[in-house]
Amino acid sequence: MLGSRWFLEFTTDQEASLHYIEEILYAARTEYQRLEIMRLGSYGKALILDGKLQSAESDEFIYHESLVHPSLITHGSPRKVLIAGGGEGATIRECLRYPSIEKVVMVDLDGEVVEACKKLLPEWHEGAFEDPRVSVYYEDARGFIAASDEKYDVIILDLPEPMEAGPAITLYTREFYQEVLEHLEDGGIMVTQATSISTNNFQAFTIILNTVGSIFPLAKGYWASVPSFFVPWGFVMGSRDRDPLSLQDRELEERIESLSGELRFYNPSMHRGIFSLPNYLLKAIRKETRVNTDTDPLSFY
Amino acid sequence: MLGSRWFLEFTTDQEASLHYIEEILYAARTEYQRLEIMRLGSYGKALILDGKLQSAESDEFIYHESLVHPSLITHGSPRKVLIAGGGEGATIRECLRYPSIEKVVMVDLDGEVVEACKKLLPEWHEGAFEDPRVSVYYEDARGFIAASDEKYDVIILDLPEPMEAGPAITLYTREFYQEVLEHLEDGGIMVTQATSISTNNFQAFTIILNTVGSIFPLAKGYWASVPSFFVPWGFVMGSRDRDPLSLQDRELEERIESLSGELRFYNPSMHRGIFSLPNYLLKAIRKETRVNTDTDPLSFY
Amino acid sequence: MLGSRWFLEFTTDQEASLHYIEEILYAARTEYQRLEIMRLGSYGKALILDGKLQSAESDEFIYHESLVHPSLITHGSPRKVLIAGGGEGATIRECLRYPSIEKVVMVDLDGEVVEACKKLLPEWHEGAFEDPRVSVYYEDARGFIAASDEKYDVIILDLPEPMEAGPAITLYTREFYQEVLEHLEDGGIMVTQATSISTNNFQAFTIILNTVGSIFPLAKGYWASVPSFFVPWGFVMGSRDRDPLSLQDRELEERIESLSGELRFYNPSMHRGIFSLPNYLLKAIRKETRVNTDTDPLSFY
Amino acid sequence: MLGSRWFLEFTTDQEASLHYIEEILYAARTEYQRLEIMRLGSYGKALILDGKLQSAESDEFIYHESLVHPSLITHGSPRKVLIAGGGEGATIRECLRYPSIEKVVMVDLDGEVVEACKKLLPEWHEGAFEDPRVSVYYEDARGFIAASDEKYDVIILDLPEPMEAGPAITLYTREFYQEVLEHLEDGGIMVTQATSISTNNFQAFTIILNTVGSIFPLAKGYWASVPSFFVPWGFVMGSRDRDPLSLQDRELEERIESLSGELRFYNPSMHRGIFSLPNYLLKAIRKETRVNTDTDPLSFY
Repeated sequence: MLGSRWFLEFTTDQEASLHYIEEILYAARTEYQRLEIMRLGSYGKALILDGKLQSAESDEFIYHESLVHPSLITHGSPRKVLIAGGGEGATIRECLRYPSIEKVVMVDLDGEVVEACKKLLPEWHEGAFEDPRVSVYYEDARGFIAASDEKYDVIILDLPEPMEAGPAITLYTREFYQEVLEHLEDGGIMVTQATSISTNNFQAFTIILNTVGSIFPLAKGYWASVPSFFVPWGFVMGSRDRDPLSLQDRELEERIESLSGELRFYNPSMHRGIFSLPNYLLKAIRKETRVNTDTDPLSFY
Repeated sequence: MLGSRWFLEFTTDQEASLHYIEEILYAARTEYQRLEIMRLGSYGKALILDGKLQSAESDEFIYHESLVHPSLITHGSPRKVLIAGGGEGATIRECLRYPSIEKVVMVDLDGEVVEACKKLLPEWHEGAFEDPRVSVYYEDARGFIAASDEKYDVIILDLPEPMEAGPAITLYTREFYQEVLEHLEDGGIMVTQATSISTNNFQAFTIILNTVGSIFPLAKGYWASVPSFFVPWGFVMGSRDRDPLSLQDRELEERIESLSGELRFYNPSMHRGIFSLPNYLLKAIRKETRVNTDTDPLSFY
Repeated sequence: MLGSRWFLEFTTDQEASLHYIEEILYAARTEYQRLEIMRLGSYGKALILDGKLQSAESDEFIYHESLVHPSLITHGSPRKVLIAGGGEGATIRECLRYPSIEKVVMVDLDGEVVEACKKLLPEWHEGAFEDPRVSVYYEDARGFIAASDEKYDVIILDLPEPMEAGPAITLYTREFYQEVLEHLEDGGIMVTQATSISTNNFQAFTIILNTVGSIFPLAKGYWASVPSFFVPWGFVMGSRDRDPLSLQDRELEERIESLSGELRFYNPSMHRGIFSLPNYLLKAIRKETRVNTDTDPLSFY
Repeated sequence: MLGSRWFLEFTTDQEASLHYIEEILYAARTEYQRLEIMRLGSYGKALILDGKLQSAESDEFIYHESLVHPSLITHGSPRKVLIAGGGEGATIRECLRYPSIEKVVMVDLDGEVVEACKKLLPEWHEGAFEDPRVSVYYEDARGFIAASDEKYDVIILDLPEPMEAGPAITLYTREFYQEVLEHLEDGGIMVTQATSISTNNFQAFTIILNTVGSIFPLAKGYWASVPSFFVPWGFVMGSRDRDPLSLQDRELEERIESLSGELRFYNPSMHRGIFSLPNYLLKAIRKETRVNTDTDPLSFY
């Protein structure tokens, strides 16, 4: 007998998914968006904003480990990290695994979402918000960065999708990446989530990669498959000179072994594996010439 | 405005997907199953058996290239290939790229499905069924193999899911793999599709890997993400002594360059990348002790 | 923007409905069934048993007024009423409107459902359970009736659907109706809910009507349209000699005016209107010869 | 096992239905709308415009008989009928049952829809388009009526829903009804479909009734339950002096008996029954004061 309660999400106007809902833990309208926290039959707890699944208990670790570790491991000794977005606290959690970390600053627009995550999603943050090295600000990330002289070893852009007309659209532009670059220490690295990669819809990924590459001397795209997202997920890393694939095996292993706690996804082999991209994507990356700008932001969807 | 016509597939009793249908090209009930060929809005043409999406035009190449090339490239000079299943003809298509290929034998139970694919899915087979090196038999694959003395360089198991009570259940057992091993030439390789790999449901994959490993001295699991399948897809390769990761870069590149036509997914970097498995899966593989047998076939779902 | 949370109900294997869920108020598994109480966007609060909508706040009055009043008004001076089923308490509520009522006995199998309704569905019962004239028993209705000598003016069968293998299947048989008839006072009336009436599926209705007619000298079918049920709903009234259509207009009006509280559906005109049946149904009723029996209960679905 | 192919219709943003599709018979985009003809598992063939079910083989007779007969029977000897809309031809079919009919004029905006119905929906029109008494024009109904001096015994408005911004919005206004009145012969009657009647959404019905009543001395609302429409459907009849409920039983029976062919829904008892309205609707009708006008057409949805 089928269950009665379903989370219906239209990911495009031609695709939708239905997930069985075990329990609705929270539902509210914040100043910025519709916020729901549900327990889904297949994926455990899930954070849903404006009807879109943001992360799910059963596989958030794939997204968060893939977002954080390639950059922090490549850096080698990150002390100061800035996270733009990152509401659930799991991005902080991954950063705090590094013995070298002294300071993690998180800037998220929607304090109501963060407060709900603090209370209802301890599996994500694992108490990270209470760590004395962490500070959290409820502000627009772009304004926050522009207003400060502080520099960081790694800046992590854990942002909502760059929807046309959405507030995050200006957090994927050339001008913003320039601002980010200026707030990186020597040897600093930026990484951004870079949207879904489907075989027939990957232009947001290639544009973001090309835009990052127009500012950062070294820009690398990579991907990971998060089951609850349906399609592989893209990430783009930018730096002045840090190549994630130049690490020696021994070095890579030692750096990963030094992390506290147990990783569930990332390991030395995955570090290399996630940078393997298929021909159709390599070809699209080679052909991509568009650059996203403040004055003429591209419509990704 | 949303479209009216949707392909609804319950992948488990807690998960379903909806795909917009552009056109229903064919619908019939064969001797063995419900057969539908539709054109979906996001994925192009799609083959659907008993309500389950089998492969879709927009990303079938990921599945078929991942199924075929790691084994044939690792082999180096495949002359004779046996395909069990493989209805759409795309597995044959990939095999015929090898200059060394002399003979491809395909054995599929359901001739009505194959005939419909021949007529309606030319994008899959690209005329491969007409190639003089190819022969197709409509029989039970296990009986076919047992009844013949023929040996092959590569045996590819492109089979339906091992559903409890389904006919394919005995094509994932230790006894069948023994039969397959005995029909491999020296240096021969077997590869099987090995079901979906979700973060909370990967036991079919680990059991198949363990079962192959109970017969083949060298068993390797790998995966690839096929968007229309939602979750990453697993494969298991077995051989007496051929390690896909022992190929030198140069050798790998040369072998891939010798293939005819253009690959859309597989390349030297992907050859290595798809064998990178995450910690949670490596851990499950290490712990797996179950072996699937004819007398006590495991219930995978 | 569409909402995220939906109540999905397959009413047949070819029909389903989706209702937006505002809130899940209660979800539990009782000894007998899955119980859910939700607030739906279009229908307000709803009682759902085993995934089937039982009644909804916005239109339960149509069902309950149609179930109760045609019989009690036709009777004229009901003093003692027995309700088999009736969990939500709205059937009691309607009975208590009659100044002549002295005793309402309700027998429902699933006490957990009734207790949840008492607490969460006050809009249905309006405190009726607390009325000193009311007694409630958690028992099988058929056993309860058989074990007692008590006679009633009206017996109301407010039962679950007669599903094959469901417990209610024996509450729609000739033998049970005989038992009911024997527990009616002179001038007594029985009424039963008689399932949905679709243009292509009305056989449950005609069989119930024919079965009641095989025991009761006067059997009348009628219907009403309850929007949240999608298709018109059938009812069957049986008596020795009470014809609901023989009431004079004046008498009908006076009896209805004497009721306490405000009716939202039923009125003198509706009393006659609901007995108007269309040609296709009259034809099916004339042709119906099946009688449902204990030894060979018909499979309605 | 559930089927794969479903017609998904959102009737509001809080309600949707899923119907199993047996076959898609036709799909096109006309000059005015998206047109689909499908065979549904439960309802047989169905005409779908812009994703909305218009009528279904299994129960279109309820809608069409309810639309046509109360007015034509009340008139008594209709010779000339004008149908605005009526694409499928079933409204003509019902008119042609009257021995007195000399002329049926149908004016429908979308000729492509009518042509598709002629070819694919013979169960609806039963050849009515070929009857010599029938003429069909593909024009805007309002313009057609305004441009002509012809008068009719009955004018039937078988129109699309009065959606805000839809073309039919001006076919539900006071000014249009005035125009219609002026094109009625003495003793003439107008009837319009008057949208769905749900317990929580019936304002379109009460506004149409009130608007008709602002022009026609006698305006009567009635309803019928069409299963494939989910909720009861409303109609409004307007005339100078013809009261459908003033017919004597004998007269009513004789007139209905004189019709050719076999009616499946309408009969003398239903003629009266469909005019029985429940209290909640009578109350809303009494309170309704809004009148729909050209200059300020009300937004019904």
